[in-house]
Amino acid sequence: MALEGIRKVTVDTITSPIHTVEKGLSSSRSDLLAIEEPLQLCLNGFPLSITMRTPGSDLDLATGFLFTEGIINDVGQILSMRAESAEDDSENSGDRVTIRLRPEVAIDPGRIRRNFYTSSSCGVCGKLAIGAIEVCPSRLMRQSGPQFHADLIYRLPDLLRCAQDTFDRTGGLHAAGLFSPEGSLLGLRGRAGFELVQKSVMAAIPVMAAVGAPSSLAVKVAQRFGMTLVGFLRGERFNIYSGNWRIQ
Amino acid sequence: MALEGIRKVTVDTITSPIHTVEKGLSSSRSDLLAIEEPLQLCLNGFPLSITMRTPGSDLDLATGFLFTEGIINDVGQILSMRAESAEDDSENSGDRVTIRLRPEVAIDPGRIRRNFYTSSSCGVCGKLAIGAIEVCPSRLMRQSGPQFHADLIYRLPDLLRCAQDTFDRTGGLHAAGLFSPEGSLLGLRGRAGFELVQKSVMAAIPVMAAVGAPSSLAVKVAQRFGMTLVGFLRGERFNIYSGNWRIQ
Repeated sequence: MALEGIRKVTVDTITSPIHTVEKGLSSSRSDLLAIEEPLQLCLNGFPLSITMRTPGSDLDLATGFLFTEGIINDVGQILSMRAESAEDDSENSGDRVTIRLRPEVAIDPGRIRRNFYTSSSCGVCGKLAIGAIEVCPSRLMRQSGPQFHADLIYRLPDLLRCAQDTFDRTGGLHAAGLFSPEGSLLGLRGRAGFELVQKSVMAAIPVMAAVGAPSSLAVKVAQRFGMTLVGFLRGERFNIYSGNWRIQ
Repeated sequence: MALEGIRKVTVDTITSPIHTVEKGLSSSRSDLLAIEEPLQLCLNGFPLSITMRTPGSDLDLATGFLFTEGIINDVGQILSMRAESAEDDSENSGDRVTIRLRPEVAIDPGRIRRNFYTSSSCGVCGKLAIGAIEVCPSRLMRQSGPQFHADLIYRLPDLLRCAQDTFDRTGGLHAAGLFSPEGSLLGLRGRAGFELVQKSVMAAIPVMAAVGAPSSLAVKVAQRFGMTLVGFLRGERFNIYSGNWRIQ
């Protein structure tokens, strides 16, 4: 199997300027973020799937995807894999792994089309794919509207835990709560991550606070659309990754 | 908007028999699991997307999906939504939300086909979709092969943390480690959940241990394929959800 384009130095983190708030005092410093970026897999010239990942093991990821999804059952069926990263403004910009299987490997195009992804050409790779994730630039938030006091932010995890019934029973659900500016819980649902930043931006929710770490893409999207993103919210301490001006 | 099929009593947990191991002693009891099942969204008669979710807010989920993905920009554009749950053995079995938009709402079939999912008919809903996730019944594990000592299981989180460089730097990555039966770390990558059970089954990895809670689908797939699934691994304590016989 021919492997090309392996990055000699894997970049899986970036540095970002942040504000740390602790007991009402704010200070600025730089922080390391885990990179989260889309990777396009192309099989025999056709787009197969787009997956969000931290860079560094893209060829392993592609091999595992083919195996787990039943497209190959032996690594020897891969003729070649090539990792590319184009930073230009064309439709093909972005990270991609191009895979060719040995000619004797039978693939079921109908099943692949049904189960994964489809397009008339590999042009969907890169820019267009990233655009499909970011969706809608009309949701840009201006530097106006309400500001929020750090004391309210501190209280959010406890307010969420009080309402989080299924978690208490199973220990198994991540929760996302929607709060009014006064701290009333308006809704409680599951899941977190970049997708939640995307959903918040689309719904024009100005502040998102997480108890854990945000990814690079979560920060990038929050910054791009003017949303306030808070992370590592624990006790009377949190970090601000974007939209610092909304926190008093 | 017409809403049909809302379950009056939301079932978001199921009870499962488990084994609890603490300081070398095993006891059996029943435990509550958060349900994780696929939900098919169908738009104007065509399959739109399949998403894994905990049941209970399917119409909210469908509305949010349409809005976040830019298919609608106002909830009034939805003509009707219907939640169905078919438990039969046909291709249409499984949970589904069928959505009809007002005739004047322009949708871009090309964009939907590119960005989400495609098929010639809604027949992909349900059985076929679940089959596509479970993939490959040839990976059934027999009740034979190596057994593992509880002391080795206890040590895994520390062994993983020692190797987890990016997490230490960013606080932001979930990790999955692959260990030999002797406790040597063979590989370290990210992400956890049902997908990891699926990958482990495909790779014939006999034991998966998580520090957190497994979902109902993770347990179901582990049981179906004979894999040992351990959860809530903390200190000298863990639960066994499937494949109890492999732990000494």
